[in-house]
Amino acid sequence: MQIGMIGLGRMGSNMVRRLIRGGHQCVVYNRHPGAVKALHSEGAVGTNSLDDFVARLTKPRAIWMMVPATVVDEVLAQLVPLLEAGDIVIDGGNSYYRDDIRRAAELQQHGLHYVDAGTSGGVAGLERGYCLMMGGEKDTVQHLDPIFATLAPGLGTATPTPGRDKPAATADQGYLHCGQHGAGHFVKMVHNGIEYGLMAAYAEGLNILHNANVGKRSHDSDAETAPMRNPEFYQYDLDLPEIAEVWRRGSVVASWLLDLTAAALVEDADLTGFSGRVSDSGEGRWTALAAIDEGVPTPVINAALFERFASRGDADYANRILSAMRKQFGGHDEKKGER
Amino acid sequence: MQIGMIGLGRMGSNMVRRLIRGGHQCVVYNRHPGAVKALHSEGAVGTNSLDDFVARLTKPRAIWMMVPATVVDEVLAQLVPLLEAGDIVIDGGNSYYRDDIRRAAELQQHGLHYVDAGTSGGVAGLERGYCLMMGGEKDTVQHLDPIFATLAPGLGTATPTPGRDKPAATADQGYLHCGQHGAGHFVKMVHNGIEYGLMAAYAEGLNILHNANVGKRSHDSDAETAPMRNPEFYQYDLDLPEIAEVWRRGSVVASWLLDLTAAALVEDADLTGFSGRVSDSGEGRWTALAAIDEGVPTPVINAALFERFASRGDADYANRILSAMRKQFGGHDEKKGER
Amino acid sequence: MQIGMIGLGRMGSNMVRRLIRGGHQCVVYNRHPGAVKALHSEGAVGTNSLDDFVARLTKPRAIWMMVPATVVDEVLAQLVPLLEAGDIVIDGGNSYYRDDIRRAAELQQHGLHYVDAGTSGGVAGLERGYCLMMGGEKDTVQHLDPIFATLAPGLGTATPTPGRDKPAATADQGYLHCGQHGAGHFVKMVHNGIEYGLMAAYAEGLNILHNANVGKRSHDSDAETAPMRNPEFYQYDLDLPEIAEVWRRGSVVASWLLDLTAAALVEDADLTGFSGRVSDSGEGRWTALAAIDEGVPTPVINAALFERFASRGDADYANRILSAMRKQFGGHDEKKGER
Amino acid sequence: MQIGMIGLGRMGSNMVRRLIRGGHQCVVYNRHPGAVKALHSEGAVGTNSLDDFVARLTKPRAIWMMVPATVVDEVLAQLVPLLEAGDIVIDGGNSYYRDDIRRAAELQQHGLHYVDAGTSGGVAGLERGYCLMMGGEKDTVQHLDPIFATLAPGLGTATPTPGRDKPAATADQGYLHCGQHGAGHFVKMVHNGIEYGLMAAYAEGLNILHNANVGKRSHDSDAETAPMRNPEFYQYDLDLPEIAEVWRRGSVVASWLLDLTAAALVEDADLTGFSGRVSDSGEGRWTALAAIDEGVPTPVINAALFERFASRGDADYANRILSAMRKQFGGHDEKKGER
Repeated sequence: MQIGMIGLGRMGSNMVRRLIRGGHQCVVYNRHPGAVKALHSEGAVGTNSLDDFVARLTKPRAIWMMVPATVVDEVLAQLVPLLEAGDIVIDGGNSYYRDDIRRAAELQQHGLHYVDAGTSGGVAGLERGYCLMMGGEKDTVQHLDPIFATLAPGLGTATPTPGRDKPAATADQGYLHCGQHGAGHFVKMVHNGIEYGLMAAYAEGLNILHNANVGKRSHDSDAETAPMRNPEFYQYDLDLPEIAEVWRRGSVVASWLLDLTAAALVEDADLTGFSGRVSDSGEGRWTALAAIDEGVPTPVINAALFERFASRGDADYANRILSAMRKQFGGHDEKKGER
Repeated sequence: MQIGMIGLGRMGSNMVRRLIRGGHQCVVYNRHPGAVKALHSEGAVGTNSLDDFVARLTKPRAIWMMVPATVVDEVLAQLVPLLEAGDIVIDGGNSYYRDDIRRAAELQQHGLHYVDAGTSGGVAGLERGYCLMMGGEKDTVQHLDPIFATLAPGLGTATPTPGRDKPAATADQGYLHCGQHGAGHFVKMVHNGIEYGLMAAYAEGLNILHNANVGKRSHDSDAETAPMRNPEFYQYDLDLPEIAEVWRRGSVVASWLLDLTAAALVEDADLTGFSGRVSDSGEGRWTALAAIDEGVPTPVINAALFERFASRGDADYANRILSAMRKQFGGHDEKKGER
Repeated sequence: MQIGMIGLGRMGSNMVRRLIRGGHQCVVYNRHPGAVKALHSEGAVGTNSLDDFVARLTKPRAIWMMVPATVVDEVLAQLVPLLEAGDIVIDGGNSYYRDDIRRAAELQQHGLHYVDAGTSGGVAGLERGYCLMMGGEKDTVQHLDPIFATLAPGLGTATPTPGRDKPAATADQGYLHCGQHGAGHFVKMVHNGIEYGLMAAYAEGLNILHNANVGKRSHDSDAETAPMRNPEFYQYDLDLPEIAEVWRRGSVVASWLLDLTAAALVEDADLTGFSGRVSDSGEGRWTALAAIDEGVPTPVINAALFERFASRGDADYANRILSAMRKQFGGHDEKKGER
Repeated sequence: MQIGMIGLGRMGSNMVRRLIRGGHQCVVYNRHPGAVKALHSEGAVGTNSLDDFVARLTKPRAIWMMVPATVVDEVLAQLVPLLEAGDIVIDGGNSYYRDDIRRAAELQQHGLHYVDAGTSGGVAGLERGYCLMMGGEKDTVQHLDPIFATLAPGLGTATPTPGRDKPAATADQGYLHCGQHGAGHFVKMVHNGIEYGLMAAYAEGLNILHNANVGKRSHDSDAETAPMRNPEFYQYDLDLPEIAEVWRRGSVVASWLLDLTAAALVEDADLTGFSGRVSDSGEGRWTALAAIDEGVPTPVINAALFERFASRGDADYANRILSAMRKQFGGHDEKKGER
């Protein structure tokens, strides 16, 4: 079927490519024309303005926005006046699900349909397919089924789940209508919260392995420093790329994130190209907020979120307070470090 | 080659089966004879006593112990007097790596070789293969290579890691000599610590999804209870088995643990068959101890460990103290609940 | 000066008593007349209706609401129509600071002044005084200074802070104008978040002491249970009431919360009168939300909040998922416990 | 009575001063003679060698060691050969309680008595007194009672605990015989673990207040950065020294640590003199290890410990792994920061 795509960054462009390969007609628009040109040469219908973009689409139009969450409202403000009742707008980015609920109501006043489509897959999605989580009206989601089916990885990309007997379920293809407006991004939000926890679990474990030779290093020994009691138990020089690789087969911790970690460690076992300032792009925070609203304890997900905050220096004032307290009660001066 | 197996529980029995399928000769012994008989009928050489077991093995003997960590010393006390210089003992269970270091030294005094072999794979290992992490002398580990190669999943069970170019590496097969004595169980220990974190991340996230309809429930509203401010944002009745299924394809959180979770949710989405008392069998604790010894922050892994402690009621006294404090300063009586 | 008090629960009644002792005229109203009668007999002007209450107050009226956060809007809806421009409404309860901002704006449209007054002190406040944190217009707060000065503990209730040289500062008396509307409840909110962390630190530490004799208990030893490696190091039967008492003098952990804990332990060292379901009344959650919004890591405060959630059973579904996963990969059945 | 003191650092010197004031005879020794000279001029009996030190003491000798935990064994190796059966050695430093158990047994073989005396109070102890927690034989501890009574703060330094009726209890004076060997340092260890949690609670809360104006700052807005949704709620420029001061009177969070924090903030509200590298001197780690051994969840104490680890850069490798993973799955480059 025909689909319009607004936003041709890493994600949007690859999704268009996958849709073209799947036989769909893609009309594309991007604020910066370079990406339009590139996809035009690959078979998409390129457009230079939103007016042109909308004009090229057959009614009822189906328009997929793949833009940063912070500019969705701006795009909608320009787009909605150009649309007609019955048209469909899909937000495939990482919007906060509460915005979906608001936007769906706003668009409904114009007779427009809104679908939130949480999209996971990253840069690998072009080949692996995208995992899609949708919220919105059942009919609208159903109407877009050919698009979702093409973007999704498909049945054969995972082994069947034992005991499962749902022949018609789209989840087995890698896409799912999760519920009413916002449900897609809600599920995607929690997905990302889980992702934070998973990533942190690997990172922490590898950090322990990385320091398994700490007993070999000489240590300060004074009233301010916890002595190493058992250096003989920390004498291992471990080969982290090999360990990440071996866990990929047969172990309980095998996962796609581990596959990626193994690939990163092959490039540079010490990861010297990274400084360790870890960004967070919203979903982790929103997951944490949801847990608190629900009264659900999520210590692991929160710990993972806070590690990211702290990696960017946001604990520094708190740490200075700790040092100031220690100075007050114990007369302890801060120890100097390389940091 | 020939291998002796002591301990024919879930893990040991299946490992014998996989070794028999791989063409190895397996001599087996178990405290309870039922498992010996079963494996005998599948092609293993069954024995009724440790003496008999040792007598059936060709020198230098290779003996794999697959017994609970707490009985390893007891088994060794019986076994070692029966062995001869040059024999090899492998501990494939979940021993603490510090015990490996001690045992290797003790066995060395008898001219015996010791290998610690961290083994991951669980009940699925028979078909999927076992991920193996070894510590010990290089020559001894090398000598046992045919056994490890058969137990391990093998090259084709994961996609090649991009950029990786180590044709001779066993890690690509699913087994690895990690370092000196204890290194295997050290790596396996951290593997399990990561596993705790991964499991908790999924469990917490699914718990948020499970409560995504909390806004529909009526809520107490008094000075003791945080009111629900935005019930309109928690109106989703989500289908958790479908969500676990859809994440299995193309998403960033795809993993074997997620595959298992999807299978468990298919059986019973509410998991009413479980009470939520979660055991921990040592490695999680030891991982946490190692992190503290190394001075490495592992908030996620620790949070996961503590969730298990708390699930068994071990926070109860602390919680009663909190209630007692609240009573003291605010005159707050505890609210009654169904718990 | 004259002040009106709406809400004569534990907090409101005692505040009226302290104000009467301080020579102020208190006009009081409560939904249930019993509390009005009691305070009338102690010198307050009792009223039977909001109309009567408002009529008895001299203009510009100063009205202090001490009601649950969830009914503030309801009280205001009844009260505001009875007031006149220039009157002042103070919210001394535990309102969310965002509601203060909204309410201040709403009241301003009627020419009314609004002050949020975070109030700490609990049932002991009658004797100890109340710590007060105010948000609102400077002139209004200044106008109410005699009330705050009487409610607050006063200068002599703490030792002077070394190096501090602010003769006119009200903070030294125990009350503070923190900033614009909402600032008082914001500071009080974070105060309570800190309180959660402090309480949890004591509770966890005392729990460790409570279990210092765990090495004396017999332990299961199987593949599902982490064995106790060093029971000889956990043989202490500690006297917790005495320990709490000794820490009250000269130690780094001395505090009012510790004083209360010591009192609670004197009553019952095992705290058998409590079940350990710990309520949370909003401020802890809001503190956690603020930290996430600000991008500030607060692992301790969050852990304390989540301990409360978990104490009420809100981790149960997550725990059942963990047990279900363990069953899937390891065939582990849940161990039964007394819980 | 007479007491010998080895180790005249901040703690040891002030304890000698308090003992002299209390009418005790103090024989002192220190590796560096400067501190000996100073205390000699204040009334102590100065000595230049351990031999001289021991010779000046009346039998049965009572010798208090106030040296770093890491040199206790070294001091004992020199001291023990000079002592005679019946002499008493007290370790007032921050030794690990397991070392106490070992040392007590070793000294017992020489007929010597050993007491572990956990000592809290810091540089303020000279005036406030020291909170003392003892482990060892009942008779030995009883024998030293005059020393403990002088060092401790005394009855009047805290209000009586309601309901408490133990006229003979030393806990009311500020010292306590906690149990057998090691019990004193065990209780002191947990005391310090609690201290970590308390400190972190204040530090985190103050960090939230410190950033209460974050809505005023301009923010990046791109796919990599979580946008600030509600800047209007974070417009407060709070005066932290005044807030710390106001909480000192009447609030639930009043404590000695808060007093110290208020003093530190008076000196410099931004704490620019500190870098935020926070030391840990062992007890926090040991508390965490004890909790894990006991199976007691202590998420708050552990979070506090891990914040210190992270403040010293020990999370950096883990954070680089997170950035590397994000690069792999999302093509995300790390954002640069000032760090």
